Amino acid sequence: MANTTDLLKQHLLFCNLSDEQMAQVGRHSRIVSYAKGSHLFEQGDAATHFFYLVEGQVKLSIYSASGDEKVIEVIKPGGTFAESLMFRDAPYYPVACQMLLDSRLVSIESRAFKLLLRESVDTCLAMLADLSKRLHGLVSEIDNLSLHSALCRVASYLSAQAPEQTLEFDLNVQKQVLASRLSVKPETFSRLIKQLCSDGLIELNGPRVKVLNPNGLRALARSCSQDMESFTDSFYLSS
Amino acid sequence: MANTTDLLKQHLLFCNLSDEQMAQVGRHSRIVSYAKGSHLFEQGDAATHFFYLVEGQVKLSIYSASGDEKVIEVIKPGGTFAESLMFRDAPYYPVACQMLLDSRLVSIESRAFKLLLRESVDTCLAMLADLSKRLHGLVSEIDNLSLHSALCRVASYLSAQAPEQTLEFDLNVQKQVLASRLSVKPETFSRLIKQLCSDGLIELNGPRVKVLNPNGLRALARSCSQDMESFTDSFYLSS
Repeated sequence: MANTTDLLKQHLLFCNLSDEQMAQVGRHSRIVSYAKGSHLFEQGDAATHFFYLVEGQVKLSIYSASGDEKVIEVIKPGGTFAESLMFRDAPYYPVACQMLLDSRLVSIESRAFKLLLRESVDTCLAMLADLSKRLHGLVSEIDNLSLHSALCRVASYLSAQAPEQTLEFDLNVQKQVLASRLSVKPETFSRLIKQLCSDGLIELNGPRVKVLNPNGLRALARSCSQDMESFTDSFYLSS
Repeated sequence: MANTTDLLKQHLLFCNLSDEQMAQVGRHSRIVSYAKGSHLFEQGDAATHFFYLVEGQVKLSIYSASGDEKVIEVIKPGGTFAESLMFRDAPYYPVACQMLLDSRLVSIESRAFKLLLRESVDTCLAMLADLSKRLHGLVSEIDNLSLHSALCRVASYLSAQAPEQTLEFDLNVQKQVLASRLSVKPETFSRLIKQLCSDGLIELNGPRVKVLNPNGLRALARSCSQDMESFTDSFYLSS
């Protein structure tokens, strides 16, 4: 049983539990394994448990009356699911759950866990603190992701414009138009140009752009896609 | 005062409060305005309040002993900050807060709000449900964002490869190599190719690619950047 609780302790929902509380969770948890393609629960089944995915990959979907599937979420190792149903006492799973890969999960009895929370407002508050901190982290990541990708587009445009010999050219398109073409808002475009200047990659004199560091600018232009993939990786490893 | 509480009710932290609880929050909240550049609090100040940003933009930073600034987070309208400190009873703000734009905020007394939560485990649980649901939503968005951007890169590569007349060509690069060049994992690459086939954009026969819908493929190739900006917009409007 130590194994189960050791696994759970890495997750936000469980990291603040006392040893005694953790032992209580352990008594109402078990490790289960499911083969790829098998179903853990169907839409409308009684929501008696929530789950922590240790290994594998899990799909949550809803099905229309005509049988069309809409995937709501794909859960990766380290993630929990159905815990928000538990918090809100939802009686039924509103989604179906199927394994996308062979998977190992910890299945936790919702009623037992909820009882533990009801007995300790402090635990609830600690959990709220962790969840809200994590939310802020994700919002920042999304913001960075999106800003960085805009920066790449601007870098990539400027890099393509610069003549190889002189590295100087006029921005002979209106800023508004250029921003729209690069799919950024005009004020974001101005901020990004400023950032490229302060990073020493370009210099701006009126409409005249001088590329100071062509290799740096090209590297930045190429970096967006790479960053995104590695970001997702690191996200799931750390969660 | 109705104004303050109407504003707050749109946020996860407040949407589950009863009218009575909301009135209690209202009695311990006030709307404050700060000019661009002014400081709301400094690193180390007593953390007596948390905040809901109505209008403007706010920066949270830490400063090293030598005075170097590291921006931790930029808050946009609809966002709260310092609430996780409140949940965990942190006595001091670990960051400094400065206005990036002229801003209007609701300032809420941490002690009063915390008292309200201590009196109602149900409110805590409802809040936990909302936060965990929102977390799942953000994780999915990040996943989609990153997958969609990978799909664009693949679409853009294929679109560039296809001869204008025949629209057919051989994928004469090893899948592994191509995947790495496009900064996706090989298994992701295979999944994306399958998706393009099932969407009717391309057809694959061994190594031979036939573009069935060149306009659709080009539109997809161009769509990534656009999507990202509009995603961030809609994110902040809905939060």
